[in-house]
Amino acid sequence: MRVTASAPAKVILFGEHFVVYGEPALVMAVERRVYVSTEPRTDCKIYIRADGIGASGYYSGEALRTFEAEMGGREAQDRLQPIKVVIEHALRLSKKKVGLNVIVKSAIPVAAGLGSSAAVAVATAAAVGRVLGLELSREEVYQIAYEAEKVIHGTPSGIDPAISTYGGTLIYRRGEGVKPLTLEVEVPLVIGNTGLSRSTGDLVARVRRLKDRYPSIVEPILSVGGKIVAEAIMALKAGDLEALGNLMDINHGLLSAVGVSSGPLERLVYAARRAGALGAKLTGAGGGGCMVALTATGDLDKVARAIEEAGGETLTATRAKEGVRIEEQR
Amino acid sequence: MRVTASAPAKVILFGEHFVVYGEPALVMAVERRVYVSTEPRTDCKIYIRADGIGASGYYSGEALRTFEAEMGGREAQDRLQPIKVVIEHALRLSKKKVGLNVIVKSAIPVAAGLGSSAAVAVATAAAVGRVLGLELSREEVYQIAYEAEKVIHGTPSGIDPAISTYGGTLIYRRGEGVKPLTLEVEVPLVIGNTGLSRSTGDLVARVRRLKDRYPSIVEPILSVGGKIVAEAIMALKAGDLEALGNLMDINHGLLSAVGVSSGPLERLVYAARRAGALGAKLTGAGGGGCMVALTATGDLDKVARAIEEAGGETLTATRAKEGVRIEEQR
Repeated sequence: MRVTASAPAKVILFGEHFVVYGEPALVMAVERRVYVSTEPRTDCKIYIRADGIGASGYYSGEALRTFEAEMGGREAQDRLQPIKVVIEHALRLSKKKVGLNVIVKSAIPVAAGLGSSAAVAVATAAAVGRVLGLELSREEVYQIAYEAEKVIHGTPSGIDPAISTYGGTLIYRRGEGVKPLTLEVEVPLVIGNTGLSRSTGDLVARVRRLKDRYPSIVEPILSVGGKIVAEAIMALKAGDLEALGNLMDINHGLLSAVGVSSGPLERLVYAARRAGALGAKLTGAGGGGCMVALTATGDLDKVARAIEEAGGETLTATRAKEGVRIEEQR
Repeated sequence: MRVTASAPAKVILFGEHFVVYGEPALVMAVERRVYVSTEPRTDCKIYIRADGIGASGYYSGEALRTFEAEMGGREAQDRLQPIKVVIEHALRLSKKKVGLNVIVKSAIPVAAGLGSSAAVAVATAAAVGRVLGLELSREEVYQIAYEAEKVIHGTPSGIDPAISTYGGTLIYRRGEGVKPLTLEVEVPLVIGNTGLSRSTGDLVARVRRLKDRYPSIVEPILSVGGKIVAEAIMALKAGDLEALGNLMDINHGLLSAVGVSSGPLERLVYAARRAGALGAKLTGAGGGGCMVALTATGDLDKVARAIEEAGGETLTATRAKEGVRIEEQR
């Protein structure tokens, strides 16, 4: 049997950084998917190949502790570790001793704040689970991916595997977990990648320093961030994309105020606005990484071109209504 | 007798736009001056020459109603009108019937939000007053310039002629007028001009529309603006330029949030920050116009160069402790 599962990327529409201080965030799955194909092997090895991160190799032996890199050299093992953790988890659940080939193909840029690694974990859990005959529920797929994220990242919010699993739009608030938001409206987005790497941890620390030094200024900014999410939910429910765009612009200004924007991000943001985007903001940690522009459907290409002319790599995407799914089984 | 008077430009350090809604603004006189030289003529004509606005010509006849352009063609009369109103006011006070040559030389860019026209009015009032033997107090110079602004602009705040008259640093709040802030600290500034014209009225209207549509979001942003001014006053009194720079950065983000920044302004702001500015923000109405960067004294040139490389025209300036003054009398 050979199974292919896919899971979508995510984009934070509102609330990055402010979410650390208890404000809500609004996260949307977008139609850019990771595809994970898997099939049993005749031996007991686990072969993983992920071209997007330039790594492949074989795990074998007692508790799969032996690793032999095929591509990616000495770093391959580290890069493949999150995928291996998911596979091991599924193998444990299945109580089977079987080898697997696991091939990851991704249309999601890596390390750009688009949830690529969570999407890989979710699609891997679904594909491997199916091949092993586990009949996992969505909730179980989510749990396996989330547990793997915990092993790798410490204390992640869990929002990335949730959005890749369930798709659609989710409201997240620290301590309250995720809540789905049912929507009918199409949300045409252009994502622009500055291509500049940044450290999420450094940027989170920068906001905290500013808040600790100027609490009477920064705290109300954070709370305005929460009000923006509330307004954005109303705008989305009403299908009012113009309002949604205005709110993205305001949110971007607040992120600039707390020090997480940058020259390259502003260049892409203003290029998108000038080309007629309804709104544009940085998305994710900021510093470098990605921005996201909301456009009228007919303007997607024009806005994407403007962002490219300003030096960004783009992907256009609409809301992914579906989360993880089995694409093929034969 | 020939008299030369000068008056400084101003830069809004904090509070533009928010001041419309009752928040305080912090305005600083900067060492860029307008020089107005005047002497009596043997006839009764008033000759005004202002190279900076490309206009010169002669007023003569009953109530000086006849105008003959020398430079600037048909628009010269409109451009010189604010200066003529000040001269007429002084002539009325002196009850003298005398001709004057009035030569304006300015080191302040025109229509860039730096208070050039108020500085011209203030220096003209001081120079002409002295030549006419009026012995005007500072308060009287301010009143003449302010009255002239009212004739030309309708209902100005009065802050521009105030800062040009008194120099130093002023706190302004609508309905409360201006309050001087006594400081010892040097405040080295680089002003970067995008060279793009903008309509102050349009930008003020844009903020109002946003506030009317999203009051629960925009009103707290405006009130944060007020808190920034309070913190900035403390930072200035403590000589803490680093804090002042942080507050400028935050204020810039809030101005971006209410929609009055622009791509060209962001380019100059981030160029300045990257070159080591302690803080940088748009100043004045936004859209185009100017930004201002606060620097450590040794970094003025480096920051100015960075702004120029990013396409801005720069002027470096420190706080002008003195406002209007007589430069020469002979």
